[in-house]
Formats: sequence, C-alpha cells, structure tokens
Amino acid sequence: MKKIINRPSDVVTQLLNGIAFTHDHLLARVPQTGILYSKHLAEKTVSIISGGGTGHEPAHSGYVGKNMLAASVNGPVFIPPTAAEIFQAIQLVDQGQGVLLIIKNFEADVASFLEAERLAIAAGHQVGHIIVNDDCSIDSHNFKKRRRGVAGTVFVHKIITAAAHEGMALADLISLGEQVVLALNTLGVALAPASKPGAHAPHFELGEHDISFGIGIHGEEGYREEPFVSSEVLANELINKLKSQYHLKPGSRLAILVNGLGSTPLMELFIFTNDVRRLLALEGYDVCFKKVGNYMTSLDMQGVSLSFLEIKDDKWLDYLEMPVETYSW
Amino acid sequence: MKKIINRPSDVVTQLLNGIAFTHDHLLARVPQTGILYSKHLAEKTVSIISGGGTGHEPAHSGYVGKNMLAASVNGPVFIPPTAAEIFQAIQLVDQGQGVLLIIKNFEADVASFLEAERLAIAAGHQVGHIIVNDDCSIDSHNFKKRRRGVAGTVFVHKIITAAAHEGMALADLISLGEQVVLALNTLGVALAPASKPGAHAPHFELGEHDISFGIGIHGEEGYREEPFVSSEVLANELINKLKSQYHLKPGSRLAILVNGLGSTPLMELFIFTNDVRRLLALEGYDVCFKKVGNYMTSLDMQGVSLSFLEIKDDKWLDYLEMPVETYSW
Repeated sequence: MKKIINRPSDVVTQLLNGIAFTHDHLLARVPQTGILYSKHLAEKTVSIISGGGTGHEPAHSGYVGKNMLAASVNGPVFIPPTAAEIFQAIQLVDQGQGVLLIIKNFEADVASFLEAERLAIAAGHQVGHIIVNDDCSIDSHNFKKRRRGVAGTVFVHKIITAAAHEGMALADLISLGEQVVLALNTLGVALAPASKPGAHAPHFELGEHDISFGIGIHGEEGYREEPFVSSEVLANELINKLKSQYHLKPGSRLAILVNGLGSTPLMELFIFTNDVRRLLALEGYDVCFKKVGNYMTSLDMQGVSLSFLEIKDDKWLDYLEMPVETYSW
Repeated sequence: MKKIINRPSDVVTQLLNGIAFTHDHLLARVPQTGILYSKHLAEKTVSIISGGGTGHEPAHSGYVGKNMLAASVNGPVFIPPTAAEIFQAIQLVDQGQGVLLIIKNFEADVASFLEAERLAIAAGHQVGHIIVNDDCSIDSHNFKKRRRGVAGTVFVHKIITAAAHEGMALADLISLGEQVVLALNTLGVALAPASKPGAHAPHFELGEHDISFGIGIHGEEGYREEPFVSSEVLANELINKLKSQYHLKPGSRLAILVNGLGSTPLMELFIFTNDVRRLLALEGYDVCFKKVGNYMTSLDMQGVSLSFLEIKDDKWLDYLEMPVETYSW
C-alpha cells in the first residue's frame, strides 16, 4: 500500500493545494474549503458546478476553467462535500443567470447537492440540477441496473458547459442534460482493486488472473469476475453490454470515452481503443468523437471503462468539440 | 502481470493504430512503420523529430501536432526505431529548412538516430541533432553520473519546437538545445517496478516498503533502495539532489516537471507537487512554470520523477508557454 502521501488525514488539503499551485492560471482554491473555482468565470451565463469525493482525479477540477465548469466542490476521499460547502460555491459563482449542479447518482452525493440547492434557492438564487446515471452495470443480487454516475459524467460536463457558454438558459440546460443522460451509458472493469490512503488492504479481493465487471468509481466491487483473456475479448464484452442499451444501426453516431481508472498505462488504453475501433467499424457505427485517457479515476484502481454517447443532435458534437482551457479535458 | 493487450507481439502496431485513430485530427501513422507524423506541418520552418522505444506513452506521440513535433518515430517496447525508419521520417517531414532530431541519451537510441542523420545528409537533407541527458542519477558501481535522457526531454521538445515555429534556423536551434540541456536535470524514483508485455516477472525486485532512487525510463533499477517515509521526505531528497547540480540562489527561476512513471495516480502527483512547492518556496526560488502529470512513462512503473530547468533566458519561458495542439503537452 505504498502511496506518495504524507498522513492520510492530510490528503485532501494537500491535493487541493497541489492542484491550485499547478494550475494557478486556471483556478484557485477557497482557503479551508474543498472549493476550486475558475479564474475565467463568464459573465451573463449560467454557471455550472460539479464535484463529489476526491480520489477521482482529474475529476472534477480538471474540468474547471475557461468555457467549462465554474467550480468543483471536493469532499474527503470518496465522500461528497457538505451541502454548506456546495452552497458556498453556488454563492461564489452565480453571475445572476442561475447555477446548474451536475450530480453523479450516488445517494450521498444527491443528498448533499440537493440540500445545497434548497439552501441556495431559499437565499434567492436560481438553481437547478442534472443527475447523471450512466452506469449500466447490474446488481449481482437482484439483477437491477445500478445506474450510478460514473465516467460518462465528463461528457455531460462538456456538453452542458458549452451550451451555457453559448447563452442557453437554465431550464433549457436541464432539459438538454436530461436528453444527454438518456443517451449515455458506461461500463467499467477492474484488473486490480483500489486502496484508500491509510487502508491496510484493497477494497476487494481479485484473483491473480481475474477481472471484475461493473465496478464503481469508489472502489466498489463488480457484479461478475472472470479470467482475463485479451483486450479484444474485453472490448467485445463491454461493447455488447453497451449496445444492448440502445437501438443502434449502421450509421448511428457515437461519441466514445475510454477511461483509465487510475493505474492503467496509456499504452493499454490505446490498445483497448484499437480493439473498440475495429469492433465498432464492423457494426458500421460512425464514431464521430473519442477521448482516451484518465478522466474519472478511482484512486489506484487498475482497469478501464467504456462510455457510449449516442449523438442525437449535431449540436451535441459541436458542444463536445468547442475549445476550452482546463487541465484535463 | 495482467495487461490490457492481445499478444505481446502485437503491442506496438495496435498501440500506434489506437493513437492514430484517437487523435486523427492531429496525426497519422505511416502504414507498416513506427512513424506518427503531424497533420499540421508548418511550411518554411525546421521540422523537429523525436522518438525512441514505445512504453513511454504519451511520449513521444503526445507531442506531435500543431506547433510542436513534426513526427515521432516509435520502435518496439523500450527499443529504438531503426535508422531506416528515422530516415524515412526525415524525408517525410523536411520542408526545405532542415530537420532536427531530439535524441535521448541511450547508446542504442543515439546510434540509430545518428545513422539516420548520416543517411539523410548523404541524400541531400540538412539535418542536425540534440542529445538530451538530463538524468543526474549515478551508477551504484562506479559513482559516475549516468546522464541518460529521461522526462526532461519533454521540456526540450517544447522549447525547441516553439523556437522553430518562430523561424529559428537549424544551427541556432542546436545551440539553443545545448544550452537548455545544460540547465536541465531529472531524478526519478520507483515505488514499484515496470513489467514488459509478455514478461513473467517485473524488471527488478523491490521490498514491500522500499523505493528505488535513480531509476531509468526503461524499467532500469535505481542506484539505492530505502524505505518509503513520506511524500515530503521524498520531495526533500529529490530537491537536494537536483539543487546540487546548480548554483541557485533566492530568486532563481525554475520550470519544474513532476512526471508520473505510468501507474501513479494523479492524486499522488499533486500531493508530491504540493511538497515540492512548499520546499522550493522556503529556498526562495521562483517556480515560474510547472507541469504535473504522466508525460514520459515507463510502462506500469509506479513512481515519480522531478525535473528542474533553470530558466536562463525569458525567451525559454515564452517558448514553454506558447500554445500548441497536441494530445499531451
């Protein structure tokens, strides 16, 4: 469990100070809080806030900056920030056009963000939210879809902030967000589990040759373990599960995100992407946008997630492609 | 040794195809070769080529694109490309103003690149080179400095390509490169060794609580092992070793690179950066440029390297800051 940290209790403060120092052209930290806010807040547009627990770096601070998130609010490792801190961030970034919260669908996250929304509305702010639930894995006990918010959230950040930058009003952003979330699915697989700072053991056990399907981004175990065969077999399994969420046909347009979970070398992500490319070409789909890298991690988890966003409107692609200045989009 | 690959023999081809697919706006692969070339070659400027073995992703293709490298030439894992392939890349990107090769100081790399330079000059091209030797670790047997070319090479890429973009001639670029290399030092430390695709064991053994100082970027073992204490102690040791290469005083300007070696989560790189920040502030140095992330990796090695570039000319900072379009600068 060697980690380049000092004391486990210092991890969040030192992480946020390290981010703010490294990217001082883009963002700043509100001292003593988990708030990182953009130094390039646009006037007369809806401000977008995201956040959650830390341990997902570069999420969410990597998407704060010019033409993207106004702020990220960061809690303890894998624990969402308090409603009070989120409320403070809303007060800080509201430019008079309202504030939109992008929330990943985990019970504790939703509770904190919605409580902050209530506090802010009571204080006279115009606030709305989008709940992202792109995870299409299932619960191994009852076979229900878990629908947590995972890596695909990054696509929601990008599309919604681009639309806000173009002047879209709060109610329309919420409606756009809901459409995008309906077209978004993610499935992740771990080759090795994550371990939290200070923990003496990883989150779960995994056989030497096994992989775990349907893991979460907080170190949660998946719903099925099986031996690892090859990148191609893995790509085929993930694609089949994702495809079953849609009615795709030849010519259907997909934006894809191949996301490393923290400790997976970029070489492996590109090799996996090459298998995804080949298999999607066989189906005749038009992969019109792609991102490959570490975008929403789970500490030192080794593995990959694949996200599909079916592009149902040309504007979505424009929004994905609009230039921004952040440290990780 | 689980890795998201297919057969070890397919790794390089599938990696390069994955990169070319993902970043098709920026670069393309010359089929059947290790050459990835920019789709945005500038006219009337010196073209800059880098490269080496694969396994260092995002190096070197992550620096190919608009206003940066004209091409990267990629060999097998940890093995440089052939002179013939490098020569082919020179022929491809020469815009009539000559070609500059940026070479990391490893015997096999230097041999391949200089042979390609000879071939190209014989064919009528104007070609020069810079050899980067930023590693300031020592050989544990004879205490000589090893002076390999490691992560600091990324700063050389950036500065030289920006100067070329401004129209600097080949001879002046070589002279600039030599000055930058003299002001550049890197020291790396591993928390866990790398393992090559298909290997049954990692490159070297490391105790459960130990770290290895002065590792290379091809999985090479360091010169000293000791127990890991904390991020701060590690930062202090690396800074002291790097400082001893300079005559720094309060106000001295430094560009720093905190480079992950492949499997180190970004959280840990930022925490380490925060310790570097604090310790350099105590010395009164002016850290006027910083990069933190995975820039020159060693497959799945876990660990970090720290590079210092003493900024001796304002132009160097301008060159570092000049905007580019690549997938990893």
